[in-house]
Amino acid sequence: MFDPTALPDTLQLSQLAAAQARVADHVVETPSIRWPEGQLLDAIPAETEVWAKLELFQQAGTFKPRGAMNAMLGLPPEVLRRGVTAVSAGNHAIATAYCASRLGVDAHVFMPKTARRHRIAKAEALGAQVTLCDTQSEMFERAEALQQSEGRTFIHPFEGPLTLQGTAGVGLEISQQMPRLDVLLLPIGGGGLAGGTGAAVKQIWPDTNIIGVEPQGANTMTLSLQRGETMQRESVSSIADSLCPPKTEPFSFSVCQAVLDDVVLVDDAALRDAMGVILADAKLAVEPAAAATIAALKGPLRESLGGKRVGVICCGTNMSLDDFLEVMAVTA
Amino acid sequence: MFDPTALPDTLQLSQLAAAQARVADHVVETPSIRWPEGQLLDAIPAETEVWAKLELFQQAGTFKPRGAMNAMLGLPPEVLRRGVTAVSAGNHAIATAYCASRLGVDAHVFMPKTARRHRIAKAEALGAQVTLCDTQSEMFERAEALQQSEGRTFIHPFEGPLTLQGTAGVGLEISQQMPRLDVLLLPIGGGGLAGGTGAAVKQIWPDTNIIGVEPQGANTMTLSLQRGETMQRESVSSIADSLCPPKTEPFSFSVCQAVLDDVVLVDDAALRDAMGVILADAKLAVEPAAAATIAALKGPLRESLGGKRVGVICCGTNMSLDDFLEVMAVTA
Repeated sequence: MFDPTALPDTLQLSQLAAAQARVADHVVETPSIRWPEGQLLDAIPAETEVWAKLELFQQAGTFKPRGAMNAMLGLPPEVLRRGVTAVSAGNHAIATAYCASRLGVDAHVFMPKTARRHRIAKAEALGAQVTLCDTQSEMFERAEALQQSEGRTFIHPFEGPLTLQGTAGVGLEISQQMPRLDVLLLPIGGGGLAGGTGAAVKQIWPDTNIIGVEPQGANTMTLSLQRGETMQRESVSSIADSLCPPKTEPFSFSVCQAVLDDVVLVDDAALRDAMGVILADAKLAVEPAAAATIAALKGPLRESLGGKRVGVICCGTNMSLDDFLEVMAVTA
Repeated sequence: MFDPTALPDTLQLSQLAAAQARVADHVVETPSIRWPEGQLLDAIPAETEVWAKLELFQQAGTFKPRGAMNAMLGLPPEVLRRGVTAVSAGNHAIATAYCASRLGVDAHVFMPKTARRHRIAKAEALGAQVTLCDTQSEMFERAEALQQSEGRTFIHPFEGPLTLQGTAGVGLEISQQMPRLDVLLLPIGGGGLAGGTGAAVKQIWPDTNIIGVEPQGANTMTLSLQRGETMQRESVSSIADSLCPPKTEPFSFSVCQAVLDDVVLVDDAALRDAMGVILADAKLAVEPAAAATIAALKGPLRESLGGKRVGVICCGTNMSLDDFLEVMAVTA
């Protein structure tokens, strides 16, 4: 049984509602749909009722402005004015660029040289200065140096109470848009979405099971939960690159410990298959991360969730059609 | 100024609400979104506020079950039991199959030999018997013969009070989901969607301008409105094949006369361009018909609607990814 006192004060419902109001001018309420007849419902037991949160319609194409905007609005104005910096392979860079542009402040983000052109271009189109780096450590070092030299604030992609307060907005909206769920599936990268959304939903619907979904090649949260502590990985690998941070962090990890009832893994083939299902059923060409929860429902959880009312989430996507076809072609 | 007495009794708001309740178990409330930052908003005057009804998430992937289901539920049970028939190049065949399957009755639909495989397969997957025909007249003659020989009821794709009562549900939902619009753009094929939705919205928001959007190569409603009477065409041609019926019909035409403030035309190039915009901004791979209103907003209405609050609708889509790529490739 869920124990709300396991959550920090900063994630109590009144705090989450306050954060939702704080960012309301800058993020949109994204829709939820009852999943239509088609490949997904044909593949799972009859009477299973599926609801999907289409968070990819969020500004910047991802849930990430919810947390980043709340983090920025939490800064003293004179600090915010000095600008922000961030490290990201894509969605968080774009979200940081979007939020900075909305607030009229400067963003300088560090992305890997291997980042998809589409994502780099989108961050730049939103006004961010983008510096491409060779390695993960170079990105973090240069962002750190910029904080020192220019007084910029580092906007973390998934850690910290303000970030999770922001992502919790997804959960508050789910509780308004869907009927009470038996199970809610949440994708896990660093745990910012799963922790924040889970914290909201568990306080409103304590009996709803929250199951995290991780890529098999990037199962850092699963390993961290098994060990009971955060960890850093040498390397992770999945086509769901948006779910591949190389480490867990203390705050988001502890919240995930409190709100997750279970975590399951999905491999790249299952992610590709789910991308095809989403395209067939809902005509959405999404990136692998956005297909993770549907991959879990159609795969490892198919039988155990049969007949239940299940919530899934398309958490965001920033991929061109060419990128989509390239990822999908491997299965053809 | 809109005159509600110009509408028939069957389309008064109380009747529309009753139809919405009648079909509620079989169709879903589709979401509306505030259109996100991206190519569309970059291409139109700043401060223009765009809201989109994502009716493609309707059961069967199109708005058409709203009308078809209301028409079927209006039949005496012993008549309904004898089954239904329909003529369609795609969406209405699929919708008829879906509705018949929900109600446990038989559907036999006539489609052109040139119909996309994906659509034929989807109608069959939903349990309909599909007969492919060489010509438009052959389809109608065989459907007529089947009514005579088997006592089936013909479900019209866009004509009649019950059909428009059903499609009006789109308008009732829009009035709940969007702030009061300055302008609502509605695609026109036969006028069933535009008439029904327009009838609802005009009664709720009399000051909202309703502008129909027709493909340039299939401007039958435009010509009918100019002449003041229904008409039949020798041939029509547009990539928006779902907006290409060869004629207007009396009931839906008269309602369109009453509710439309204007009609504009979009050509195939504009439709393809809008399909690309929808893919870029919302990741949706839709058929040309679903892109018509956005094509109109980005094209002929760009300046005149600048700064206004505008509603558009992705009315439905049933096309495979291969079909999508084939249609789009022409512009590449």
